[in-house]
Amino acid sequence: MPQFMDVHHGMKGITADQLMQAVRANVAIEKEEGVHFEKAWADPESGTIYCLSEAPTAEAVRRIHERAGQLTDEVHPVPLTA
Amino acid sequence: MPQFMDVHHGMKGITADQLMQAVRANVAIEKEEGVHFEKAWADPESGTIYCLSEAPTAEAVRRIHERAGQLTDEVHPVPLTA
Repeated sequence: MPQFMDVHHGMKGITADQLMQAVRANVAIEKEEGVHFEKAWADPESGTIYCLSEAPTAEAVRRIHERAGQLTDEVHPVPLTA
Repeated sequence: MPQFMDVHHGMKGITADQLMQAVRANVAIEKEEGVHFEKAWADPESGTIYCLSEAPTAEAVRRIHERAGQLTDEVHPVPLTA
């Protein structure tokens, strides 16, 4: 299944608990769109979050984030890894 | 050791081989700055590369990329993961 990296801006000051709650909100509904969120990394200083997922399409990733109340600035397919 | 996510733009059309060569160029010298590159993901369509590393500082990550001839647009500490 294709992998995607999505990026959220504007999350300055996010805490470990808030990140965990955001991830749980996604994971709770991810199966409904065939998405699997693998990992998330956050930089509270710049307010940036990166999420790595496996999903059928970028739109599926975007829909899960949207339904979980999360604005997603970018969703990039990442077909190459090393 | 702190983790960092760095981002490279302007890499449209990058191939799997080119990504692997870029990663190898970093890995060959990473120890000299105490850096360890863990993973890289690339989107050839938008020309974006994401690299996850462990390093003492963001500057150490930036120096390894520079010495390997790679322009780095952003280096974010990512102290939070989920």
